[in-house]
Amino acid sequence: MSGAGKLYGVGTGPGDPELLTLKAVRALGEADVLAWFAKAGGTGNGRAIVEGLLRPGMAELPLHYPVTVEIDKEHDDYKSRITAFYDASAEAVAEHLAAGRTVAILSEGDPLFYGSYMHLHVRLAHRFPTEVVPGITAMSGCWSLSGLPIVQGDDVLSVLPGTMAEAELSRRLGDTQAAVIMKVGRNLPKIRRALAAAGRLGEAIYVERGTTPAGRSVRLAEKPDDAAPYFSLVLVPGWSGRP
Amino acid sequence: MSGAGKLYGVGTGPGDPELLTLKAVRALGEADVLAWFAKAGGTGNGRAIVEGLLRPGMAELPLHYPVTVEIDKEHDDYKSRITAFYDASAEAVAEHLAAGRTVAILSEGDPLFYGSYMHLHVRLAHRFPTEVVPGITAMSGCWSLSGLPIVQGDDVLSVLPGTMAEAELSRRLGDTQAAVIMKVGRNLPKIRRALAAAGRLGEAIYVERGTTPAGRSVRLAEKPDDAAPYFSLVLVPGWSGRP
Repeated sequence: MSGAGKLYGVGTGPGDPELLTLKAVRALGEADVLAWFAKAGGTGNGRAIVEGLLRPGMAELPLHYPVTVEIDKEHDDYKSRITAFYDASAEAVAEHLAAGRTVAILSEGDPLFYGSYMHLHVRLAHRFPTEVVPGITAMSGCWSLSGLPIVQGDDVLSVLPGTMAEAELSRRLGDTQAAVIMKVGRNLPKIRRALAAAGRLGEAIYVERGTTPAGRSVRLAEKPDDAAPYFSLVLVPGWSGRP
Repeated sequence: MSGAGKLYGVGTGPGDPELLTLKAVRALGEADVLAWFAKAGGTGNGRAIVEGLLRPGMAELPLHYPVTVEIDKEHDDYKSRITAFYDASAEAVAEHLAAGRTVAILSEGDPLFYGSYMHLHVRLAHRFPTEVVPGITAMSGCWSLSGLPIVQGDDVLSVLPGTMAEAELSRRLGDTQAAVIMKVGRNLPKIRRALAAAGRLGEAIYVERGTTPAGRSVRLAEKPDDAAPYFSLVLVPGWSGRP
């Protein structure tokens, strides 16, 4: 579209503002409008990460999720409400772009790796000039904080959601050199059992709030309780031949 | 060690200097000595990425691999020579650290994700203050350049080396929502066959030189030849429910 603004999908990295890339900083500097996802009434982690880079009076476009975990994700009502939300959000961004304004949509971590941004990307990237600025993923922030080599040489890495059925999770943990288990939270007791069944509980590292000042990591086998925030991770390192 | 310098493992990202993080730039600014891996006689991609950030007269410690692909990796001679090289490299870095100098070791992509840096990390991190600065991985640079959403929701992502046996590669491609195939190069004909056997050739995207100005991506099924540099990637996106 002639005269249209540019769309940036900007990865903010996992939490530490110093883990923004130079390209992300430039994109935020070019943006006329800053769009970000958040729970109703909130401002979201992505916006908190870039807070120090915002210009006074910069236009903002909050995109507030209509539903979070209150409705079962397989339920038709959830699906129709979330689809309508992404449609409306894309149109709100499109109006700015069509008017010639550059829009940066924030995405925690990396935009195309489990990010909400991709719902807008597929609705807009064929209509407007678009650039995706990759970000440091949460998993990379976590293994770096822990100083834990995750994969080497010809290792296979499996990224697994902790929401998966226990037997399936256990099977996959036994069929990979290295694993990252995402979406831990209340799935932690199940994850523990799946790791034990696969004979890998002793290798597993639990990481909480990976790249914030409150971040910590501990051997999962030594963690005495099953309390875990949703965005904690479990890392199972590969590199069996390490010295 | 009292008075020792600090060790930084610095991820340079996949190639575009703008994909360095702010933390990587700070670490390079603090470093007294810049260490980098390269083939004999070369200066390496990592150093090329940070070239514009080096201070005049900054001390450098080149770490030249004694062997690359000339010897079979399973051969004892390869193993003993490469182990001796990592031992000697770690001691060369340790001398600087012990003398109070801060050393940044460059790592293309992310230091603890298939990086040579990890061989020095395991030899040094327990002896000296150490910080790993994560970097954008090559795979993330590639799916961002291609604008290709790779995983969403509860997708499993499998990172697979193209060196793997064909039947094993095919089995794994049929057992995951999304996949990244690394180390493509001369393995491309085999990778094509494994994708076809798993019924996923039509979804696969081939990406070459992902985050350089010469970067390009194409549907693998439409790529007419099997010429591919070693560091090209094949992406198989997940998100089956995408709109």
